[in-house]
Amino acid sequence: MEFKQQLKENINYIETLLNDYMPKEEGYQNTIMEAMNYSLKAGGKRLRPILTLESCKIVGGKEEDAIPFAVAIEMIHTYSLIHDDLPALDNDDLRRGKPTNHKVFGDAMATLAGDALLNYAFEVMLYSSINKEDSNKYLKAINEIAKHAGIYGMIGGQVVDVESENKIISKDKLDFIHLNKTAAMIIGCMRAGAIIGGANDEELQKITIYAKNIGLSFQIIDDILDIVGDEDKLGKPIGSDLENHKSTYPSLLGLQESRVIAKELIDDAKISIKDLSTQGEFLTKLADYIVSRDR
Amino acid sequence: MEFKQQLKENINYIETLLNDYMPKEEGYQNTIMEAMNYSLKAGGKRLRPILTLESCKIVGGKEEDAIPFAVAIEMIHTYSLIHDDLPALDNDDLRRGKPTNHKVFGDAMATLAGDALLNYAFEVMLYSSINKEDSNKYLKAINEIAKHAGIYGMIGGQVVDVESENKIISKDKLDFIHLNKTAAMIIGCMRAGAIIGGANDEELQKITIYAKNIGLSFQIIDDILDIVGDEDKLGKPIGSDLENHKSTYPSLLGLQESRVIAKELIDDAKISIKDLSTQGEFLTKLADYIVSRDR
Repeated sequence: MEFKQQLKENINYIETLLNDYMPKEEGYQNTIMEAMNYSLKAGGKRLRPILTLESCKIVGGKEEDAIPFAVAIEMIHTYSLIHDDLPALDNDDLRRGKPTNHKVFGDAMATLAGDALLNYAFEVMLYSSINKEDSNKYLKAINEIAKHAGIYGMIGGQVVDVESENKIISKDKLDFIHLNKTAAMIIGCMRAGAIIGGANDEELQKITIYAKNIGLSFQIIDDILDIVGDEDKLGKPIGSDLENHKSTYPSLLGLQESRVIAKELIDDAKISIKDLSTQGEFLTKLADYIVSRDR
Repeated sequence: MEFKQQLKENINYIETLLNDYMPKEEGYQNTIMEAMNYSLKAGGKRLRPILTLESCKIVGGKEEDAIPFAVAIEMIHTYSLIHDDLPALDNDDLRRGKPTNHKVFGDAMATLAGDALLNYAFEVMLYSSINKEDSNKYLKAINEIAKHAGIYGMIGGQVVDVESENKIISKDKLDFIHLNKTAAMIIGCMRAGAIIGGANDEELQKITIYAKNIGLSFQIIDDILDIVGDEDKLGKPIGSDLENHKSTYPSLLGLQESRVIAKELIDDAKISIKDLSTQGEFLTKLADYIVSRDR
C-alpha cells in the first residue's frame, strides 16, 4: 500500500478509537463532555496515537494493549492545544480552520475542558490497566506519559516558549523548547507503547532516539512551513512566528541550514530503528514524511 | 492530646511532606515551579491529605505507603483553586489573605501552573508506585483519585456550579454540585488511602460513607459561614454567595434546617466508622470539628 494511503487509514482508525473512548454527553455536566469532544473531533494528524500503536507493534506487542494509551495521548495533546489557544496564552480564534474551544464554549468552560481532558487521559489509562497480568508494566507506561507531559516535558517547554516571546534566545534554550514542548510527548508516547509491547532496554533506547529525532525534526519543519508554507494546505495563516518575533531554527540558522538539520535528524531516526523488525517499514516512511511534508 | 492540637500537628506534618515533594525551582522552566510552589505553600486546612493518611491507618495500613497520595491530593486540590480563581472563572484576587496565583504570575503562567500541578500529582503517585510489591493495589488507588477528580467527580461538579450562577436550581442539582465539587475528592482520597492500607470491601464501604457525609456537611457549613461567619476568622469576606445569587442549602432550606442536615450527616459519618478501630478516634473528632468549625 502506498504510504499516504496507509497513513490515512491509520488516521481513520485512530478517529474510530477516539470515538469509542470519548465520554458520553450526558448528565448535569454534559456541557463539559461536549466541549471535550468538540476538540477531540476537530481533526489533526493523529501522529502521537499512531506512534504509540506502532512502537508497541514494532517490538512484537499486541496493538490492542496500547489502544487506551494511544487515545489518552491524543487527549493530552488536545488539552494542551485548548489551553494554548486561550486568550491568556496565544489568544487564537481558529484551529485547523474551526473556531477554537473557548470561542465556542467560553473561556471558563474551555479552561475546564482542558483540565478535564488531561484528567480523563489518566482515567482511561488507569482504568484499562487495572487487574491486568503485568500491573507494573502498565504503571511504568503511564509514568512515561505523565513524566513527558509535565514540567520536565511538554509543560516545561511550553512555559519557556511563552516566556521567550519577543526575545532573541540562545540555540540552547531553543533546543530546550523543542525538546520539551514538541519532542517530549512523542518520546513519552513511543516509550509507553514500547513498554506495553514488552520492549527490552536496547529496543527502548532505539525507539527513544527515533522519537526524539522525529520530534525535533517535526518542529523545525513546522517553523520552516510557517515561513514558506502554503496557507491553503496548512489550513492556517503563515508568518505568525515572524509577527510574534519568535526565535526559531530558521530565524537563528537560516532556512537552508534548518532544512539540512531536519534531514539529518530524520536520517539518524531511521538508522536507529532499522534493525528492529520489518514492521519498521511504516516508521521509516513516516520519518521521511515528516521531513518532506507540506502541511 | 486535645483535638485542635492534634489537628495542628497533622497540618504541620502535611506541610513538611508537601515541602519534600515540591519540585525544585531550577532549569529554564523555573518560573512554573515557583508558581506551583507559591500556591502549594499558601496554607489551608490540609484536610484531604490528612484524611488520606488517616484512612490508610484506620484499616491497619502503613502511613508511609500513603504519603505520595496525600501529597498528590493536595496538589490536585491546589490546581483546582488556581484555575477556579482565574479571571475566566471566579476572578478572585485573594485566597487565604494572599494574592491569587494569577495576580502574582499572570494568567498564562497560572493556567500552566494549574495544569502542571494536576499532571505532577499523577507523576508523584505513579513514580512512587512503580516496582512495589502489589502494583495492582496502587493502580486501583491512583484510579480512585483520577475518577473522583474528573468529569464524574470534582470537575463535573465545578462545571455545573459555574453554569448555575445567578440561577435558582433544584435541590437535586445542588446535591449534585456538592457531591461532585466537594465530596468527590474527599471520597477519592479516603478510598485511595484505604485501598493502600489494605481495606476489605466492608471497610472501604464504611469509609466511603464517612467521606461522603463529611464532604457534604463540610460544604453546607461553608455556605452557612458565608452568611453568618466572622470575616476575620475566615480570612475572606462573607456574603459572596448572596452577591452572586448562588443557590445553597441555606438559601433553599434556610439556616436552621441546613444546620440540622449538616449535623445529621456528621452523626451518620461517625456511626459508619465506629467499629473500624480505636484509631477512629481522630476521624470521629474531625467529623465533629467539621460541623462545629467557625473558619
